Amino acid sequence: MNPILKSSLLIYFIGACDASGTDIALDAKATLLHRIDSLNLLIYTCLLTLTVLTIWVFKHRRVSWLHETGLAVIYGLIVGAIIRYGGSTNEVTYIDAHPAPDTKYNLSVPPDIVRFHFPDKIQISSGEAPIPNKTYAYSFRGEIVKVEQNEIDLKATFDPEIFFNIILPPIIFHAGYCLKRKYFFRNLGAILTFAMVGTALSALVIGALMYGCVQLMPASLASSFTFLDTLYFGALISPTDPLTVLAIFSQLKVDVNLYAMIFGESVLNDAVALVLSGAIQNYEKRYSSDGGFEITGFLGAIGDFIGIFSLSLLVGALMGCFTALMTKFTHVRDWPLLESALFVLMSYAAFLIAEVCELTGVVAVLFCGICQAHYTYNNLSADSRNRTKQLFELLNFLAENFIFTYIGVSMFTFPKHHFDPWFIIAGFLTSTLGRAVNIYPLSFLLNLGRKPPIPMNFQHMLFFSGLRGAMSFALAIRNTVSEARQAMLTTTSMIVIATVVLQGGAATHALAYLRIPTGEGQNDENEALPYRDVRSNGRMVVKWGNGENEVVMPWQLNYKEETPRGSTDGGSEKARLARLWGALDSRLLKPLLTHARPPLTETLPGFMRPVARLLTTTRQYTQSDNSLRRTDSDSDLCIDEPQPVPTSIDPQLSYNIRNGYGNV
Amino acid sequence: MNPILKSSLLIYFIGACDASGTDIALDAKATLLHRIDSLNLLIYTCLLTLTVLTIWVFKHRRVSWLHETGLAVIYGLIVGAIIRYGGSTNEVTYIDAHPAPDTKYNLSVPPDIVRFHFPDKIQISSGEAPIPNKTYAYSFRGEIVKVEQNEIDLKATFDPEIFFNIILPPIIFHAGYCLKRKYFFRNLGAILTFAMVGTALSALVIGALMYGCVQLMPASLASSFTFLDTLYFGALISPTDPLTVLAIFSQLKVDVNLYAMIFGESVLNDAVALVLSGAIQNYEKRYSSDGGFEITGFLGAIGDFIGIFSLSLLVGALMGCFTALMTKFTHVRDWPLLESALFVLMSYAAFLIAEVCELTGVVAVLFCGICQAHYTYNNLSADSRNRTKQLFELLNFLAENFIFTYIGVSMFTFPKHHFDPWFIIAGFLTSTLGRAVNIYPLSFLLNLGRKPPIPMNFQHMLFFSGLRGAMSFALAIRNTVSEARQAMLTTTSMIVIATVVLQGGAATHALAYLRIPTGEGQNDENEALPYRDVRSNGRMVVKWGNGENEVVMPWQLNYKEETPRGSTDGGSEKARLARLWGALDSRLLKPLLTHARPPLTETLPGFMRPVARLLTTTRQYTQSDNSLRRTDSDSDLCIDEPQPVPTSIDPQLSYNIRNGYGNV
Repeated sequence: MNPILKSSLLIYFIGACDASGTDIALDAKATLLHRIDSLNLLIYTCLLTLTVLTIWVFKHRRVSWLHETGLAVIYGLIVGAIIRYGGSTNEVTYIDAHPAPDTKYNLSVPPDIVRFHFPDKIQISSGEAPIPNKTYAYSFRGEIVKVEQNEIDLKATFDPEIFFNIILPPIIFHAGYCLKRKYFFRNLGAILTFAMVGTALSALVIGALMYGCVQLMPASLASSFTFLDTLYFGALISPTDPLTVLAIFSQLKVDVNLYAMIFGESVLNDAVALVLSGAIQNYEKRYSSDGGFEITGFLGAIGDFIGIFSLSLLVGALMGCFTALMTKFTHVRDWPLLESALFVLMSYAAFLIAEVCELTGVVAVLFCGICQAHYTYNNLSADSRNRTKQLFELLNFLAENFIFTYIGVSMFTFPKHHFDPWFIIAGFLTSTLGRAVNIYPLSFLLNLGRKPPIPMNFQHMLFFSGLRGAMSFALAIRNTVSEARQAMLTTTSMIVIATVVLQGGAATHALAYLRIPTGEGQNDENEALPYRDVRSNGRMVVKWGNGENEVVMPWQLNYKEETPRGSTDGGSEKARLARLWGALDSRLLKPLLTHARPPLTETLPGFMRPVARLLTTTRQYTQSDNSLRRTDSDSDLCIDEPQPVPTSIDPQLSYNIRNGYGNV
Repeated sequence: MNPILKSSLLIYFIGACDASGTDIALDAKATLLHRIDSLNLLIYTCLLTLTVLTIWVFKHRRVSWLHETGLAVIYGLIVGAIIRYGGSTNEVTYIDAHPAPDTKYNLSVPPDIVRFHFPDKIQISSGEAPIPNKTYAYSFRGEIVKVEQNEIDLKATFDPEIFFNIILPPIIFHAGYCLKRKYFFRNLGAILTFAMVGTALSALVIGALMYGCVQLMPASLASSFTFLDTLYFGALISPTDPLTVLAIFSQLKVDVNLYAMIFGESVLNDAVALVLSGAIQNYEKRYSSDGGFEITGFLGAIGDFIGIFSLSLLVGALMGCFTALMTKFTHVRDWPLLESALFVLMSYAAFLIAEVCELTGVVAVLFCGICQAHYTYNNLSADSRNRTKQLFELLNFLAENFIFTYIGVSMFTFPKHHFDPWFIIAGFLTSTLGRAVNIYPLSFLLNLGRKPPIPMNFQHMLFFSGLRGAMSFALAIRNTVSEARQAMLTTTSMIVIATVVLQGGAATHALAYLRIPTGEGQNDENEALPYRDVRSNGRMVVKWGNGENEVVMPWQLNYKEETPRGSTDGGSEKARLARLWGALDSRLLKPLLTHARPPLTETLPGFMRPVARLLTTTRQYTQSDNSLRRTDSDSDLCIDEPQPVPTSIDPQLSYNIRNGYGNV
């Protein structure tokens, strides 16, 4: 730097500094807060790094008695305890305030902002006089129930809304994007029964039993729980999160149909539970003023549930189809980065649109993921397929492990825990019972109409896979205003930790004990969460779209199976619906939304020909049938497919696969 | 659902609902706030989608008069204006408060939490009585300067800290990870001079001139600016962000050395400006109580600057090397997902560690990125290379476009703008002058000692590339407490918008006007921001590690050039340093941190042999020299390399390339 210039400028400095002491103290305070935030993030980053390294060690040494999610929880617990008991407390300063004398305020909610005036003179206990005659803005945070409880310690905690807006969407989207639709559709009946009816049933049973239990408890506790509270607890503890079990399944190559049922159910029951809990809250809001039960209100809640679920589904599906149209009719695929960005933005927009419309973003993003996989994926360039797949895989991995780490840490650091031993014990018992009520009676009913029945050991395994996870925790931590809600959070956290660590660890033994066959050479059909055992040896393992496998779509399977099975059994109505949907999908939606053949010009009736021609791309005419079949397959959505499936599936074989339970 | 079970449970409902009206109103309020948040995010998601689509159209139609960042800004401005003037105002409710009568408070900062008691009776203007006898917590937000200014409207705005903790790190990391080190090292002298000395000089000149200008303005304004304020303005407006220009350069294939200088300078001067502004703030904090200039304080600020910069560099570099060690000595590369997660987590940890230690995270993450590219990248599996590259490319793209959109929107919606025409005009003039003071005198000095001098038209282009961007905006919006800072934010926003839209749009013409040669077949050497013109035709275009190009490391180039050039010119000292570093890197660091050959057992002296053996992997012994050279090359960090470089570079050729300015 030019020294002459510099020294000549120095004269400006003199007398130029007059920032007040308070501003600087405020700056220092802001810096401190920023450092604390960074430290919190750093703690979680280190925890995740540690988890990743330990997972590697476990995979390397083939440890199976503890899964990565269990590991994340345990590391979280240890670090949480250290922070709680070892760390220095960063004290929060308080002041009590009253409204200004001449205040007029006529709303039934507390104001958003308090304008706090420091008076000219303030009674001080010692030391220098504080900041006289200034006004500061304070924003609303929550109600203080016990004024004497001075400590609102926010060490290593995050705003619960982060879970719903940042952490859950990629997890759920990835589940939808990765869903192997072939096996999902095959077991659709069972999956829908378990996920829709089962979850509602489980919530109701748990809610009712908990309300009964609570009434038997000491009066102080009993009075703080309403039936709606316990029903809410039932809804939030009902969804399952069988990550751990599924990871073991995919390692041990367990029967695909069992896998599909557990995965499909867990994907859908998250969505169901979320909508259900929302409906319960809406009911509470609308009818609490009356105090009593109203049949119209109850029906309204059911209407809410159905309406919100189907509208959210619609939003997600439409956004997925819209993305498919955009990628089909523009040449944005020439620039894979733009294409990937578009894909990510549209998928997140589905979530946001649903949230803005007071629907359920998670449901929207789930069905958006399914549509993106079914339609848009076929239009993407190879680079974008690869990129979106890998991106969401990584995001899902990080988000999942973060949430389980956080469950561990927050057990010690979250300030609003309320340990109530009776409630916790009751919670454990009823949630187990709720899972049983979901699986066994519904399996019995399903087996009445289902040709390959669900055998008992599969039912036991379905029951055993009822681990609780991210969604339960996210719902529980969302609202911790009242003591009842705090007790729910504590109980939920403990149930999640116990099931993930203990049940997850025992899954291998449970498989052996229940004599569920493993390693049956079904590796090409295994609906693995793909990354679990991707193992490369220095070369790229991504195989999407490179395989030679030609697979059969669900409706084609249905069609082919009709022939040997006849169509006189109880499932014929369902099969007809599936055939209808299959025809609609292959004749209208696929040709419209993707480059798949046959083009619309061949599938639509004659008078629609001009419109059809408009909606068909040159690529669709020119591309060979075979190359499109390949990109269209389910299997190109799964990284881990070392063996190709047989090139043609004869009806008898597929029939055998569907009836695969026979080999138990 | 079983109807009998259900109806038998309904009796529980009766009398079970007694949530109070206030709680429900609070819930509704929280829902509303959540919807507003989602709507804000949705606005930006839609804006980004629109930008992506328009970029595609522009690329498709080869529009060059407006670049994507300019586009993002313009869309942002339009939507910002619509929100400002068209949207309905969501009113914020207020209440004035005073300390409770018997309060004792003895700190010089306002408290974190105000516990606001609603009294039993409150004077109401009309309607029902609000929430009596409850206590709410309010958290600190900021000072209210003008109490009468009732509207703190927070439509479509985010917490400024988001820029520093979420948006900037991926941008900066990507810059470091993508930096083509070959050309960066070749022009290191010029880059360092422009970035370090030039930025400081520019900040000082702008600061001094602005202080002079402010003194000439109306008294009310003059009194609100101290010299430190204007100096801070100088520091924040000095860093350049030549995205637009570089995108055009890479399209038109402009001289690589010019490209490297502009890119290298802009990467480094972001870091320099950030540390510089931090040092100014520290100085302000420490010495403001005295009011006068102190030479010790000034030296302290310079010490701060050097200390923080080098310590941050060290943190980043160490984390990069640590990641390299982890990926070298564990077999985590067998599981690419774990490896990628580790890579991302360690890189973000570098940022966080620096922030926790009160260093500069952005500087740490920049050098971490450079080290990750130089060492860790060689150890990664092909899948992880691909994945990390694509991930950061996508994040960078989204983050960049988001920040420019936000600059546009916030111009209308950010509540703390302060339009002062004199300050804005002065800002434009001095920032142009500051850029000139950076480039021309320093180029003159550099040309004294530099053998291939920087020609005048290159200097003009360097001057012209002084667009302001993300870093300036992020620094300006970080602190908007005082009126002076608000005027700075407004001026910075306007300078950013004007330079990005106008200067960015005129860049092609400037190149033509200055007769800077373009399209000279240097496409293999073009340090493109890789994605800018990646164009695939249905196949994967990722070519990293697949090319046959063997490239020469900077120190090797230096070494080879010494022979024809002799070593008697002024650059010999620099060359010796570069050789020293090259030797250290190739003999110690590369063999230690990567699988590169020759292994440590060959490069270390005899008595270190046992240690060396310990630190050498089997792979390092067995792998052939050639395959490692290939993965080691700079070029595998760049997607867009259609032609392979010559397999061997003869000394004369590389000499010609280095002296490539001759062809102007």
